[in-house]
Amino acid sequence: MIDKSNYLGVLENFPKQCREALALPKGGVISGEITSIVVCGMGGSAIGGDLLKTYLSSTNIPVFVNRDYSIPNFVDNYTLVFVVSYSGNTEETISAYKEAVEKKANVVAITSGGKLAGLCKKVIKIPSGLQPRAAIGYLFFPMLGLLHNSGIVNVTNNELNETLVTLKDTETFKNKAQELIKKIRGKTPIIYASNQLEPVAYRLRTQINENAKLPALHHVFPEQNHNEINAFANMSRNDFVVLMIRDEHYNERIKKRMDICRDIMERNVDVVEIHTKGNFLLARIFYAIYLVDFISYYLAIDNRVDPTPVGVIEQLKQELRR
Amino acid sequence: MIDKSNYLGVLENFPKQCREALALPKGGVISGEITSIVVCGMGGSAIGGDLLKTYLSSTNIPVFVNRDYSIPNFVDNYTLVFVVSYSGNTEETISAYKEAVEKKANVVAITSGGKLAGLCKKVIKIPSGLQPRAAIGYLFFPMLGLLHNSGIVNVTNNELNETLVTLKDTETFKNKAQELIKKIRGKTPIIYASNQLEPVAYRLRTQINENAKLPALHHVFPEQNHNEINAFANMSRNDFVVLMIRDEHYNERIKKRMDICRDIMERNVDVVEIHTKGNFLLARIFYAIYLVDFISYYLAIDNRVDPTPVGVIEQLKQELRR
Repeated sequence: MIDKSNYLGVLENFPKQCREALALPKGGVISGEITSIVVCGMGGSAIGGDLLKTYLSSTNIPVFVNRDYSIPNFVDNYTLVFVVSYSGNTEETISAYKEAVEKKANVVAITSGGKLAGLCKKVIKIPSGLQPRAAIGYLFFPMLGLLHNSGIVNVTNNELNETLVTLKDTETFKNKAQELIKKIRGKTPIIYASNQLEPVAYRLRTQINENAKLPALHHVFPEQNHNEINAFANMSRNDFVVLMIRDEHYNERIKKRMDICRDIMERNVDVVEIHTKGNFLLARIFYAIYLVDFISYYLAIDNRVDPTPVGVIEQLKQELRR
Repeated sequence: MIDKSNYLGVLENFPKQCREALALPKGGVISGEITSIVVCGMGGSAIGGDLLKTYLSSTNIPVFVNRDYSIPNFVDNYTLVFVVSYSGNTEETISAYKEAVEKKANVVAITSGGKLAGLCKKVIKIPSGLQPRAAIGYLFFPMLGLLHNSGIVNVTNNELNETLVTLKDTETFKNKAQELIKKIRGKTPIIYASNQLEPVAYRLRTQINENAKLPALHHVFPEQNHNEINAFANMSRNDFVVLMIRDEHYNERIKKRMDICRDIMERNVDVVEIHTKGNFLLARIFYAIYLVDFISYYLAIDNRVDPTPVGVIEQLKQELRR
């Protein structure tokens, strides 16, 4: 038995997690005017910030995701800073939190506990006991709920319903993922999406790293057309495989670019397409996130490694304490 | 003779290009108040925007680099939008330009000609006849000069002098690069830097793609510690090699993380360090950019490909016109 900590069970519970997470702000609202949002976090705790940036791209509020010890200099009392650390003890995020307080930003922490829960005045507490990357529902939906309560975005019941209904059919996700990994196994995946869906590509890359303990690359269209496309002439289908995250709502020119590049890349490397599903952006994002999470899970099982433990990260943390 | 278009000659002329580029705004200033800067561009024309973002990180002006058909929704008449296209005909950048005008942004184009030169009212004209990626001096320094003239940043003579003096010793760069490629050849490079120097890592990745026509990955510290570090257990030193861009001015914790990770990664993969040189950030950025450009050049020669032509990109552009 490789899946010692029941990673699959946690994945199967994901739709329930999202529903619960939405209710966690409990009617809380943000006080004061907000002109920009900064999400501070690392790894699995930061990806919810990327999803928020994509979700808010149709508004006029800029969102910055900050994966570092320091925060940007422009942060001031008009900046809403979400400080996100699943454990509450991530050293980069605590350092960023302190800078945000110094700059008198409007700070809200999202954490299961740790130092951060003790330091920050406004905390949305989320359940503990998961790997951060398995808690993406808890790490994303409370931000969305709080922004909705505060009138900064209007999350409709229709989009929420579609999202939760989309996630319900766990068996279909499992079957699709198991089919897909047959085409990926033994090769280094090169993952592409549009800029808007880059968080899905990055999620798949990092989930492959953490769950399957394997390398992966990602890049975005149309930027890839200006550099990486040149590298395929010297790649082999034994070494690499391309995974394209495709979405019906992409700009028509990006769709055309993807079609043309598929033909160019297929001369040297196999190309596998992953299509999103759903009418609302929120549903399409979470459909894709859920599917790529299953892909990384089955890649781990296929690679005969337990997806849950990340021993190297624990070792690194220990050595940093010295 | 592989270097048919004399790419090496263009590289050797780079210090001269930077000096010339600084004078191109010719005393021009930006009118009106500016609260944020957006740089629109693709590929070799966008990287100057990344460098500007790094350079301005100590100010309170947020910089966004936009590699897409659309621009962010928050752009308004307080946004300075640099529209950068070496040829002046990049379709994504022209589309972004039109959106910026609709949003009444403060638009300045940097181009050698093309459609953009005809469309835009404020143009900083740069010399034509180069590959965009070889024109990074022309594509970056005019932005810096204009911001300096307008009192938005203060570029000192000391930092300019150090930058230009640093670039002067072309032979040393050539020798260093030739030494370095002996350790890289035949493997897929994984390039790391801090967030601040990510543009250098991305530059090396894309220059390897365009000049040597080879694949490469990049990622940043400390984020890498939360995901990609797990992948090394399943990597082989026959397939991959790590290149770390190091800088004495990195946060001490990031330096420590790099030291610890070097040991972890070296169990499976060779690690090569590239150290920046210089006191001023501007000098260190351009030292690193110049060195990695030579690395990609010698990798091309080593891979027996002409660094200049990018046939696949030309083919892609043709098919997009159909």
